[in-house]
Amino acid sequence: MHEIDVKAGLLAPNDAVARENRQLLAEHGIYAVNLMSAPGSGKTSLLERVLPALVERHRVGVIEGDIVGSADKDRLGGLGCPVHQINTGAACHLDARMVHHVLHHLAEDGCDVVVIENVGNLVCPAEFDLGEDDAVMLLSVTEGHDKPKKYPLMFRRADLVVVNKVDLLGHTDFDPRTAERAVHDVHPGVAILSASCRTGEGIGDVAAWLERRIAAKHAARQAAEAPAR
Amino acid sequence: MHEIDVKAGLLAPNDAVARENRQLLAEHGIYAVNLMSAPGSGKTSLLERVLPALVERHRVGVIEGDIVGSADKDRLGGLGCPVHQINTGAACHLDARMVHHVLHHLAEDGCDVVVIENVGNLVCPAEFDLGEDDAVMLLSVTEGHDKPKKYPLMFRRADLVVVNKVDLLGHTDFDPRTAERAVHDVHPGVAILSASCRTGEGIGDVAAWLERRIAAKHAARQAAEAPAR
Repeated sequence: MHEIDVKAGLLAPNDAVARENRQLLAEHGIYAVNLMSAPGSGKTSLLERVLPALVERHRVGVIEGDIVGSADKDRLGGLGCPVHQINTGAACHLDARMVHHVLHHLAEDGCDVVVIENVGNLVCPAEFDLGEDDAVMLLSVTEGHDKPKKYPLMFRRADLVVVNKVDLLGHTDFDPRTAERAVHDVHPGVAILSASCRTGEGIGDVAAWLERRIAAKHAARQAAEAPAR
Repeated sequence: MHEIDVKAGLLAPNDAVARENRQLLAEHGIYAVNLMSAPGSGKTSLLERVLPALVERHRVGVIEGDIVGSADKDRLGGLGCPVHQINTGAACHLDARMVHHVLHHLAEDGCDVVVIENVGNLVCPAEFDLGEDDAVMLLSVTEGHDKPKKYPLMFRRADLVVVNKVDLLGHTDFDPRTAERAVHDVHPGVAILSASCRTGEGIGDVAAWLERRIAAKHAARQAAEAPAR
């Protein structure tokens, strides 16, 4: 298949830059999370809910990936952290090279947390490592509980699956237990949290998960920097 | 941008095969529609609603495009028309070559209507012409009315935009008038219909739109075949 050959040719150089990004993040003790989902699953809404608390405790930088425009950047404009827009143009995902320069910039700025909102796409972003510490994906209940089986790569890539829009559970056929089983069929043991960005339900759990991961990354850096006794 | 060069290299051969597909459809008087949307917007649900009436009046063939599995094909199994599954593997969209062989098969089978359900993705399928007569796209109200501005290529490609899940309008921030303006900003004059695959609201309008387009295609063929007077 010509598609696969082309992708293999793109992924090797991407992975090389992703390793550089990961090294940069490690050197500066920066925790980075890559937020992915289908279009309209609530990535920006989740950031509107989670960022206000995050920016009180950390120096946060945000990278917004969109094909065109700056609608999401504009939504996050007043939250007290720098937001960098990347327009991918024809590309349906962010890649490691696109974020590389902005990561350098945020590192120089003294950020210790970077939040990357990827292009809304349940397929392609899953294939492109950006060098992040964690991949967080959203599945909104209106998309259906069959999605893990149909888009397994994204669910395998995720370190956390957030089931969003649970305020609409009573109005859809989405069955949380079926969804949980489907997620764990393709990615055994992965963390799953429920949330509603509309009502705020479960947002505290997502924020707490992020704080634990940030703390672990920063603790690892402090341990590495401690003088040998 | 290396991405764009790669895509340009893929699109030219795709367009050549799409022209062959279009010629094949014209020769056999087959109407073909390419159904596209984000994951979980209701493509398969729309087919479950629309196909039962279509198969009573036409010899319909369905092509299901999915990355892996046959979940959607299985859902459409009992509707009285052949359903051909194409698994794209690593590819995030159907291309003209993938459907070419199946189109030949359906033409030999005497089909006069072909319905192609593309991979759930609001980005990449928009770039790949399959040779279809019409592109129909779904936007579900839970995705938000900002999507036309964020994914303009898909909305420009569409011959019909179906705003789906209108039964959930009261539970979301989706504003139909804002959505309509946004759609027409990127694609002036394109037809927009509202529907709910859950309640059945508006499904008759979508079916009637398809019947008009099918009738026009078949009439064009009959006119071409009529002996010169």
